[in-house]
Amino acid sequence: MTMEEMGIRAKKASHKLASFSSAVKDRCLLAAADQLITSTQEILEANALDLKSAQEKQMPASLVDRLRLTGQRIEQMALGMRQVAALHDPVGETVYSTVRPNGLQIRQVRVPLGVIGIIYESRPNVTADAFALCFKSGNAVILRGGSDAIHSNLAIAKALNRAVAEVCGDIAALQILEDTSRELAGQMMRMNRYLDVLIPRGGAGLIRSVVENSTVPVIETGTGNCHVFVDASADIDMAVNIIINAKTQRTGVCNACESLLIHRSIADRALPAIARALGEKGCQLRGDQDSRNIDASIVPATEDDWGREYLDLIASVKIVDSLDQAIDHINTYSTGHSETIVTNDYNSARRFLDEIDSAAVYVNASTRFTDGFEFGFGAEIGISTQKLHARGPMGLRELTTTKYVICGNGQVRP
Amino acid sequence: MTMEEMGIRAKKASHKLASFSSAVKDRCLLAAADQLITSTQEILEANALDLKSAQEKQMPASLVDRLRLTGQRIEQMALGMRQVAALHDPVGETVYSTVRPNGLQIRQVRVPLGVIGIIYESRPNVTADAFALCFKSGNAVILRGGSDAIHSNLAIAKALNRAVAEVCGDIAALQILEDTSRELAGQMMRMNRYLDVLIPRGGAGLIRSVVENSTVPVIETGTGNCHVFVDASADIDMAVNIIINAKTQRTGVCNACESLLIHRSIADRALPAIARALGEKGCQLRGDQDSRNIDASIVPATEDDWGREYLDLIASVKIVDSLDQAIDHINTYSTGHSETIVTNDYNSARRFLDEIDSAAVYVNASTRFTDGFEFGFGAEIGISTQKLHARGPMGLRELTTTKYVICGNGQVRP
Repeated sequence: MTMEEMGIRAKKASHKLASFSSAVKDRCLLAAADQLITSTQEILEANALDLKSAQEKQMPASLVDRLRLTGQRIEQMALGMRQVAALHDPVGETVYSTVRPNGLQIRQVRVPLGVIGIIYESRPNVTADAFALCFKSGNAVILRGGSDAIHSNLAIAKALNRAVAEVCGDIAALQILEDTSRELAGQMMRMNRYLDVLIPRGGAGLIRSVVENSTVPVIETGTGNCHVFVDASADIDMAVNIIINAKTQRTGVCNACESLLIHRSIADRALPAIARALGEKGCQLRGDQDSRNIDASIVPATEDDWGREYLDLIASVKIVDSLDQAIDHINTYSTGHSETIVTNDYNSARRFLDEIDSAAVYVNASTRFTDGFEFGFGAEIGISTQKLHARGPMGLRELTTTKYVICGNGQVRP
Repeated sequence: MTMEEMGIRAKKASHKLASFSSAVKDRCLLAAADQLITSTQEILEANALDLKSAQEKQMPASLVDRLRLTGQRIEQMALGMRQVAALHDPVGETVYSTVRPNGLQIRQVRVPLGVIGIIYESRPNVTADAFALCFKSGNAVILRGGSDAIHSNLAIAKALNRAVAEVCGDIAALQILEDTSRELAGQMMRMNRYLDVLIPRGGAGLIRSVVENSTVPVIETGTGNCHVFVDASADIDMAVNIIINAKTQRTGVCNACESLLIHRSIADRALPAIARALGEKGCQLRGDQDSRNIDASIVPATEDDWGREYLDLIASVKIVDSLDQAIDHINTYSTGHSETIVTNDYNSARRFLDEIDSAAVYVNASTRFTDGFEFGFGAEIGISTQKLHARGPMGLRELTTTKYVICGNGQVRP
């Protein structure tokens, strides 16, 4: 099948999906969860092929681990699918309504986006997760996973599609590219006629490539150079606790802290405590000269460090003279994901929340909470760091758009 | 100044603008309205230069008219600015809030987008209108108008910037490109680091070029191949009235009707009345064979006609066998702008509203109402025909994004 044919099928499916009731969608998701379990053996065999070629390619162990499926991981996927079935369906909600002086009744209602394209890297569970969220919100989806996981992805999609066929009949709600070439991914990025949005999920390189090459509207997800600012009035124990959590609880995630700013008036007391606690966790600090005057074991930072997303046990540290300098620094170097201030000062808290230009701004809490589950959405398809359409964790609501529904009794424009 | 320097200045301005109170923004807009009036002579002299070169280039009269400013048109611009000042400021509204079991207080609040780029064609009043809406919603704006109106645009921007300097001091809230070359427009389309969104306003060619070439997120505005479907149960007088209004009240606008679908069971009675009324307005009909069997004066339509946005006294017409066929036809050929059904049947109305995939769907009213003023938004920056971020008329709310503001007392993630 050509990309164009897949687009036509997806668009047609999206028109049907838009009118499915929540009950039908939920029944299909529960059937899909069952199909995953029933197909465990088939999926594991497919996964074994991917693992074999990963070993032949001498893929690093951490990546092989992301690729690996087990009976337990398949159960997790099925559980995720059941959890999405249990979530509230946002389709049909009225967002805004008005009755105009001429009697026109105008309602803005939530509807599915239509056809969503997702381009992702090695984790095969994305195949199931992305389908669940897109389907629950009434969207057709075209998936393009990485070549490393292609056998696993196809086996998972096959299982899911058995459930779709069983509950919904012949409808192209889920299609997956069997050809993982760059050429086809490039074609997908220019399918404006059929794709309503393209969501890249993966590393910074993948995301940059999609943003650069796509003519389809893109939602950028995921890079996080997150900051913790320890203000002059901070409770030092709380600051240490938040920094340890934000930096070390999980290092490879986008909401982990990468950079520390410390107010000069508290630095003499706060930095040694912070450096000691991070040191115990094996975390390297790279700092400016002022921080190194306080703790000589801090490695000198270069200009490059301020913008780095390490995703590792490394953090940059800088001493600042004021709240203004902290805000300027963050607004200059941040990727606009999540930033936190530790403070006991009302005005510092208020100004930080108002003036920091990021998706999530915190007072006295860890940046690690920027996550669809932690925000109470029940699931997430990614964390948007752009400002258009969705910003921050994206749940089902962010996979919808609206349309205006207008009821008249013969009104014409004067 | 380079494009990069303009971007840096705009980004810096956007951080200041985000914290301006509505009172300050409104004071500035009222001062800008006054400045437009005070600068009438200067603006008209600049406009005379544009009109002179338009005549030298033998620009068509209709385009010259769009370019021409008069004392009255400048008063209109000033009035528009005062009306925007009087609108409700959406910045700071809480869109969603929750308190999590761990005590984290999460609020999603409306904030400005940041820096908005607008690329537009010959109407110089866009310079004032776009500034007013972007400024009121707390955004910095970089404008790139067409070369035809460059003197007028620069004079208007100069007047507006006098008001900005007077009320807000040294802040690059409004910048305009003096160089209208394609090269610079191309650079603007790739300013991802500084521009949060790019809005093209103009003809289909301009919009296509921006969508194709921009790496900055784009909001597509404005092409409308709008349909009126006359259902089997329609009131024929109402149908004629709505069609005449939608097709002929103003032809050059995106919410004008371009295509008529008529249910076979009513076509014998409805089509002659519709054709007669349109004929009296000088409107040509291009139809399928079935429609020509009813009225031989209808010109044969080609496949190309179903997708055309004529923006002229021409409409296509097709006889359909069913509501399903009408919905399929519209979802195939429409640009997703506005469509209306004329019907007395509850189920037809409900299905049309549910299944048509357009920004605005109507029952028994003219498509001409798809407009920010008619929807009660008080103003509009354009009508989005894409699904991401904004769909339909875009007012102040659509020029904002949100951020999550989270207040804790030491929470870390377990």
